[in-house]
Amino acid sequence: MPILRGKALVGQSGGPTAVINQSLVGVIEAARASDAISAVYGAVHGIAGVLDGNLIDLTHETQATLEDVAATPCAALRSVRKKPTREECVRVLETLRRHDVRYFFYIGGNDSAETAHVLNEIALAEDYEVRLFHVPKTIDNDLRETDHCPGYGSAARFVACAMMGDDLDNISLKGIKVNVLMGRHAGWLTAASTLARSGEDDGPHLVYLPERVFDVDAFLGEVERVYARLGRCLIAVSEGIHDAAGEPIFKTKEVDSHGNVQLSGSGALGDWLAGRIKQGLGEKLRVRADTYGYLQRSFAGCTSAVDAAEAREVGRAAVREALGGRPHGSIAIRRLGEGADYRAGFEAVELSAVAKVTRPLEPRYLAGDQGVTEAFGDYARPLVGPLPVRGRLSFRPV
Amino acid sequence: MPILRGKALVGQSGGPTAVINQSLVGVIEAARASDAISAVYGAVHGIAGVLDGNLIDLTHETQATLEDVAATPCAALRSVRKKPTREECVRVLETLRRHDVRYFFYIGGNDSAETAHVLNEIALAEDYEVRLFHVPKTIDNDLRETDHCPGYGSAARFVACAMMGDDLDNISLKGIKVNVLMGRHAGWLTAASTLARSGEDDGPHLVYLPERVFDVDAFLGEVERVYARLGRCLIAVSEGIHDAAGEPIFKTKEVDSHGNVQLSGSGALGDWLAGRIKQGLGEKLRVRADTYGYLQRSFAGCTSAVDAAEAREVGRAAVREALGGRPHGSIAIRRLGEGADYRAGFEAVELSAVAKVTRPLEPRYLAGDQGVTEAFGDYARPLVGPLPVRGRLSFRPV
Repeated sequence: MPILRGKALVGQSGGPTAVINQSLVGVIEAARASDAISAVYGAVHGIAGVLDGNLIDLTHETQATLEDVAATPCAALRSVRKKPTREECVRVLETLRRHDVRYFFYIGGNDSAETAHVLNEIALAEDYEVRLFHVPKTIDNDLRETDHCPGYGSAARFVACAMMGDDLDNISLKGIKVNVLMGRHAGWLTAASTLARSGEDDGPHLVYLPERVFDVDAFLGEVERVYARLGRCLIAVSEGIHDAAGEPIFKTKEVDSHGNVQLSGSGALGDWLAGRIKQGLGEKLRVRADTYGYLQRSFAGCTSAVDAAEAREVGRAAVREALGGRPHGSIAIRRLGEGADYRAGFEAVELSAVAKVTRPLEPRYLAGDQGVTEAFGDYARPLVGPLPVRGRLSFRPV
Repeated sequence: MPILRGKALVGQSGGPTAVINQSLVGVIEAARASDAISAVYGAVHGIAGVLDGNLIDLTHETQATLEDVAATPCAALRSVRKKPTREECVRVLETLRRHDVRYFFYIGGNDSAETAHVLNEIALAEDYEVRLFHVPKTIDNDLRETDHCPGYGSAARFVACAMMGDDLDNISLKGIKVNVLMGRHAGWLTAASTLARSGEDDGPHLVYLPERVFDVDAFLGEVERVYARLGRCLIAVSEGIHDAAGEPIFKTKEVDSHGNVQLSGSGALGDWLAGRIKQGLGEKLRVRADTYGYLQRSFAGCTSAVDAAEAREVGRAAVREALGGRPHGSIAIRRLGEGADYRAGFEAVELSAVAKVTRPLEPRYLAGDQGVTEAFGDYARPLVGPLPVRGRLSFRPV
């Protein structure tokens, strides 16, 4: 097979993660190491940058700069939430052709995989040879094919640390506390709220996932039961909770270009639930709500080491697969060992298997009407890494 | 001077911090090391535990347990928001007398200093010899006399890391972002939002403190100016912002037993400001709000090493002063060096100088209508410790 020579282009798309720049640097360093690739360009604000001609040259960044960028959260190239039309995809291909770009790596979620998939169809139709790869990232962990998504481990680590602290806060000053967590269609991140529990009565005591129908009356009953038993109650709620008809329990009016309703960036759902608890169980109760918001995906200084290393490797793997002759694909992480023997492998899968679809928490991770199983903990713990110590006094009575 | 022999009692009060258990362990280990103190008791839920007879024996906790507890956020003894009446203070003294408690250490804010002060007056009137010490803690950093308060450095570190990440998030996906930060009467924690800025256009671009009058129209004008220049705007707002009459810009109805209005545990102020921005500058703008909430004081795994060490030392210093014969007092931290030469000293001050009063940001730290001066950064940086790296690409045009 003849070597495909030309330039490489890389872009970042969708909500940032703490390690999305690891994947960017993985792509850059692997591409720079190849004789087939003459230059590495970056698209500023993803596909929007390609359409606007807003490209930068990454070929000569120093390794020191790249290491600093890799360790920095959020999209160093800037990101975008844009689903290009077919006509825009045609224009993207024209730009690639004009710059002799033969390798395109798009770091993002299932929408980005879909964009790569459409670009691939047009490239085939126009007979322009270009290797098109999706590099997975999402704190939501909701991509198909891969065991888990780069970005999830660090976001899950943040949620576990935050919930551990908040549980200790709730023990210190008793009351009912609602914490709203990200995850529009899948409860992976909300489920991570359970990872720092180590004692029997540790919170969160109630965990509500979008994989289940949310019933307000049942919710109030559960809260009342826990509060009666412990004098406190810590609740983790996905922003994506919905009723039996699939309608969000609470929503604002904004919709992005993918048709997604805005759920984050507002404390409204948490405040509404806190209000319902007071209304249902007593206006005098100490009820508080926090919405963890964008901190879950962007916080600087709470990265999972495993997540960071894997995010770097999916970037490198995409370049390796492309240089190896595979015309297009998405990189999937395979779990090659469990528990203490955890390690990951990387391989390419079809774009069409990842594009558009999402992956909810599997039934084996769901426990009854709310909460998660031990199996979920076994799944998630290696991705999150060791959590902070939780010391306890003995409470010897005087 | 004869040695005062008897038991020691320690309690924790007010909002938790990430290092309040360091002070607890500092008290326990220094008290256990003294021959004058026969046992160390803990009051569960602070002064409420003394009133209820809910005391535990800390004398025989292992050092390993104490080290784990010290590293764990929030009040291991449980906390309380309670201002005891004079009659309750008399009952507290009775309990101390009954248990032969001759040393009482109350870890908390200015309300706790006030409680210790009242207890001292009653002890004097009743001629019961007991050493009464306030051990300072508060993420708000608003105690008088001390250079800074244990708990502040770690909360400021959390805010700086969160704001750095959120600034990178706001660069990745442009828009207007409002972040509401804790600090009812003083802007110390909100000011810490500036500590991770390292480049000219790094956010937060606007910082609103309770030391200034907040004017919504002026606010909208500032936001518009920044947004016109950068295409984005990151805003840090104290939960305690108020109008010219001193009325909170937005408040809920709850009031605690100290008469403090509830400001935290709700996203309402942030959502209201986001709504006003849309209303004033355009409904189509991407405006988001996060309220950092309880994570600022309780997050597990983002502790300042300097803060942790100093929190331990204020506990030890209180015991040292009490054993040295001082009848009552609060521990103040003195700054003995600046910048890289930063180090702290510890000494006792009068309870009455700390009780009830608060300390706002001094004028030298305030810059114009909003924002803080370089002098604030010099003040706060040693307390927070080294922050995560912030890598930047060179943005060489193609």
